Amino acid sequence: MRRIGVLTSGGDAPGMNAAIRAVVRKGIYEGCEVWGIKRGFAGLIEGDIVPLELGSVADTIHRGGTILLTARSQEFMTEEGRREAFASLHRAGIEGLIGIGGEGTFKGLLTFHRETGFPVIGVPATIDNDIGGTDYTIGFDTAVNNVVDAINKIRDTATSHERTFVVEVMGRNTGFIALTAGLAGGAESILIPEFPFDIETVCQRLMRGMRRGKRHSIIVVAEGVGSAPAIAQEIKQRTGLETKAIILGHIQRGGTPTVFDRVLASIMGARAVELLLAGERRAAVCLVGGEIKHCDLEEALRTTKKIDEAAYKLAEILAI
Amino acid sequence: MRRIGVLTSGGDAPGMNAAIRAVVRKGIYEGCEVWGIKRGFAGLIEGDIVPLELGSVADTIHRGGTILLTARSQEFMTEEGRREAFASLHRAGIEGLIGIGGEGTFKGLLTFHRETGFPVIGVPATIDNDIGGTDYTIGFDTAVNNVVDAINKIRDTATSHERTFVVEVMGRNTGFIALTAGLAGGAESILIPEFPFDIETVCQRLMRGMRRGKRHSIIVVAEGVGSAPAIAQEIKQRTGLETKAIILGHIQRGGTPTVFDRVLASIMGARAVELLLAGERRAAVCLVGGEIKHCDLEEALRTTKKIDEAAYKLAEILAI
Amino acid sequence: MRRIGVLTSGGDAPGMNAAIRAVVRKGIYEGCEVWGIKRGFAGLIEGDIVPLELGSVADTIHRGGTILLTARSQEFMTEEGRREAFASLHRAGIEGLIGIGGEGTFKGLLTFHRETGFPVIGVPATIDNDIGGTDYTIGFDTAVNNVVDAINKIRDTATSHERTFVVEVMGRNTGFIALTAGLAGGAESILIPEFPFDIETVCQRLMRGMRRGKRHSIIVVAEGVGSAPAIAQEIKQRTGLETKAIILGHIQRGGTPTVFDRVLASIMGARAVELLLAGERRAAVCLVGGEIKHCDLEEALRTTKKIDEAAYKLAEILAI
Amino acid sequence: MRRIGVLTSGGDAPGMNAAIRAVVRKGIYEGCEVWGIKRGFAGLIEGDIVPLELGSVADTIHRGGTILLTARSQEFMTEEGRREAFASLHRAGIEGLIGIGGEGTFKGLLTFHRETGFPVIGVPATIDNDIGGTDYTIGFDTAVNNVVDAINKIRDTATSHERTFVVEVMGRNTGFIALTAGLAGGAESILIPEFPFDIETVCQRLMRGMRRGKRHSIIVVAEGVGSAPAIAQEIKQRTGLETKAIILGHIQRGGTPTVFDRVLASIMGARAVELLLAGERRAAVCLVGGEIKHCDLEEALRTTKKIDEAAYKLAEILAI
Repeated sequence: MRRIGVLTSGGDAPGMNAAIRAVVRKGIYEGCEVWGIKRGFAGLIEGDIVPLELGSVADTIHRGGTILLTARSQEFMTEEGRREAFASLHRAGIEGLIGIGGEGTFKGLLTFHRETGFPVIGVPATIDNDIGGTDYTIGFDTAVNNVVDAINKIRDTATSHERTFVVEVMGRNTGFIALTAGLAGGAESILIPEFPFDIETVCQRLMRGMRRGKRHSIIVVAEGVGSAPAIAQEIKQRTGLETKAIILGHIQRGGTPTVFDRVLASIMGARAVELLLAGERRAAVCLVGGEIKHCDLEEALRTTKKIDEAAYKLAEILAI
Repeated sequence: MRRIGVLTSGGDAPGMNAAIRAVVRKGIYEGCEVWGIKRGFAGLIEGDIVPLELGSVADTIHRGGTILLTARSQEFMTEEGRREAFASLHRAGIEGLIGIGGEGTFKGLLTFHRETGFPVIGVPATIDNDIGGTDYTIGFDTAVNNVVDAINKIRDTATSHERTFVVEVMGRNTGFIALTAGLAGGAESILIPEFPFDIETVCQRLMRGMRRGKRHSIIVVAEGVGSAPAIAQEIKQRTGLETKAIILGHIQRGGTPTVFDRVLASIMGARAVELLLAGERRAAVCLVGGEIKHCDLEEALRTTKKIDEAAYKLAEILAI
Repeated sequence: MRRIGVLTSGGDAPGMNAAIRAVVRKGIYEGCEVWGIKRGFAGLIEGDIVPLELGSVADTIHRGGTILLTARSQEFMTEEGRREAFASLHRAGIEGLIGIGGEGTFKGLLTFHRETGFPVIGVPATIDNDIGGTDYTIGFDTAVNNVVDAINKIRDTATSHERTFVVEVMGRNTGFIALTAGLAGGAESILIPEFPFDIETVCQRLMRGMRRGKRHSIIVVAEGVGSAPAIAQEIKQRTGLETKAIILGHIQRGGTPTVFDRVLASIMGARAVELLLAGERRAAVCLVGGEIKHCDLEEALRTTKKIDEAAYKLAEILAI
Repeated sequence: MRRIGVLTSGGDAPGMNAAIRAVVRKGIYEGCEVWGIKRGFAGLIEGDIVPLELGSVADTIHRGGTILLTARSQEFMTEEGRREAFASLHRAGIEGLIGIGGEGTFKGLLTFHRETGFPVIGVPATIDNDIGGTDYTIGFDTAVNNVVDAINKIRDTATSHERTFVVEVMGRNTGFIALTAGLAGGAESILIPEFPFDIETVCQRLMRGMRRGKRHSIIVVAEGVGSAPAIAQEIKQRTGLETKAIILGHIQRGGTPTVFDRVLASIMGARAVELLLAGERRAAVCLVGGEIKHCDLEEALRTTKKIDEAAYKLAEILAI
């Protein structure tokens, strides 16, 4: 394989640049050329493809977002779109494609491979951590650290005013961000889609804490469970406690990546190149039990990652 | 004066603890006792008052929020409430009161003094910076740094997706936070209550930037101007650009105070003690032209602080 | 078991408070009392032991250092000292001891158990990550993030002045901090005790980078390899490049723990309680392949943790 | 004036990029061209000069260091060197020069103007804050915030081990950084060149604090007073307290600039352009009592900025 293409697609995640850097430098080290495709599958269809040199990725490892830009492409969801994408790759002389992104990216890569036979490798990068087959996705650690930073700030004002705060975090229909940030942030309750909860129990827990002398409470809510303002309103009605809602939104997504995300992205990016060179045609890189491995893209998509029930119970015990 | 009382009231602001620490240690250094009143005027009415030692304020200078807690008291707005507050102070043997807070706190102190003749000193602390007579209030610098941190994070995702973001910040009916954070954050437009704006002009500015190659735009909106989601919606309709809204909310208020706020709070807190000991009866500490001074509480309340028009124009020029 | 003792010993590590909090709350949840021993083994000998309640560990999860204080005790290295420690535990009615710390702590626990038969559990906490049997120790992730923050700042000045910086980091006689921080910080070279290096090769690498247009270089050096000033001096002599040295020192050790360290500490602390209650008498908690397990304290001490050679080679490739 | 040159010189300071950005955009707004000179006076002599567009300074306001690079030039200290610099400016068609830097930069600009009559404007940027005529220089606020962040981290380990730390900070032969960071960081003692101190008194203060229950102490030392290791050694000998030294070094200099520095740099950079266009020939921009003004370069160099004695005494009182 002489020329590799790389793109980022879907929601941006901190560490994507570290992954791009690893693909470029590892690729060149192995004697390949690496070309960057702008704005994900959209740029692939348009042929917005540029050669990347060692220096193209200098001073990028610490930057949030993605230097290749990203987008969601409706056109790539059509067969016509994917045919044009294939033609672009052919014209550019690219022989293998590395796609960095989440579930949508993996689906796009797999469909594209099925139709064209083109070799594709997926690198899991999404703050939501909701990709099967891998223990962690690139961007998740940074996002939860962002959330916990925000909780620290909210706690200052919560304590001073003796208030309850309901903090809504991202995660699509999963609770990975909420559970991890809630456990690390010392949240009094964590509401996630994976486990049913009863608002009355949450309220009783709150009141019990108040009686025991707690001056404030933080409740972390995954977006998949409902909206923070509605939950805050309900709690206020049931308990009479002054309860505020805050939706963290896009600040979760940005910022310089943590060491964990930079290292994970560097190793995964390099591994993606190795897999292409070793003849893999539709693999996903993954982290399993502390080791970098790979699986079939289809398997990664079929598997549903389980949330850690023990951690959920521990969070309840520790926030007693 | 042998015994001084200190309280924090209204919205909490980073640096309040540094101000309390300075009141306590300067007071004790000058041979006084310092007593802390919990939860602002509410605690004053209830007599929730405790003696503070040198060690009571150890390891607090870097903490956000207020160790004395804060609240808004309806009762203190009644003559009856203020009579009880006066009785509490009398019972506790407190001879002078230092109130750390914003406009509401200053109003409370002034009314209280008028009715009772009790010596009061106001220390301006509010993230909104909307107190007359002082160039800066305690907490403002930390809040704008919090906003700019958030803008940095939002910019990563804005750039990667080539999107426009409308970021709503605090400030009540003023634009101090929005203007300063917008100037420092390199915002493309800043919408504040002090200057009328035309949404069509904002949109044309946006489109002009896009034509010149800008890949993203940040628009900072003061809460006094309108809600971010509504403005984002309007921009989207007029320009067709994908426009997201984010309301920063309470994360602006928390966090460890900046050096500027810690130093300002330390000097102002100590000055408040000096003023009481020098016989001032209803003064507000203020920072004017880089110097710590004081003025009559009434004057501080009567004066409306002007926003810096030159800075507003400069922000427009620099975000060209 | 009705009463559990907990102590921190040796160098402090961010996350120790999260571990103490987990021991206390999990212990109480399981129906035990938890008593805290101050200043490690020194306080054990002196009988400086206090009961801890649920509220004793409120608002501590985000704090660096250790609320139980820590020290290195010469006396505990003697049989006489350990006899007094045993007497203290007996007097306090403590039936099992959880020690949070590094290699020295584990050695102390093991010797103590051997002599007295007293049940002990070790929780691995040291920024150096140099404990066998566990993939990560509490505090390591925070320390490397601190180092990478510092590298980010140094890089600004290195770029502006087109200089080479030699940055010395902690790690005792291992290279875990240096390798991870160097990989994540994009260091041009990483010098660690586990792999021999040739200063001439380092210099040639530097010069090759300069010829390729690199405007600055960061070399990360583990303290076990030599001192940064000496290495900087040698590089300067061989290359003529202006080379500065910086020893990061104790700023690596402090600061609020990362999410990774808070979660690891919470789970490990809770597991330590479970192990005691399950009748373990001399176990070490460990993280193996993403799972919390335990092993014999002796095994943890006998095993030498291997550094990741693949990561070392990857760092070289990516810094090309 | 149709074409303006801009350079940064001497030690880099956070906010220099914000100043460059302001010069470029304000200059272009006023109808001028702005050219950037690389590596300060060295690049001026070599003619390393490039045109800057609006987009050249996009996404730079938040970056530490200087995109124009900086250096110290021996050659510019000679008449011959300055003649070549003048020839470079002439060849490039530049009619006025804005120099961003510290004392050395200002001296270079003044000498250059005296010999050639070439219009020059100085913008004060140095972390040391040691330029006369201005209350604050660009970079100082960021540097002291960096120092206080480091002190926060050191305090965690100092408290846990009940140790004394001597922290050496920058400032050349002044104590501005040490005093401000020491006051904001709650340092127990602050040693600066402007006020004589007696090591015995420092030690007695330390011991008094220990007797009163202080578990740790931070002593901030300006580099102009002596080296931290020597002072730590002396304290240890006199008091028997375990005392550690740390030299913060270049981490003080880097990092994203604070809001204060970004705003100051933006306003000063724009003002420098206005001054050139208004016909000023050798002015320095300055901040006096909260207002941006200007003075003669010679006056800025002749004036010695006084340290705030009241703040020094307050720091002693508050660290009681």
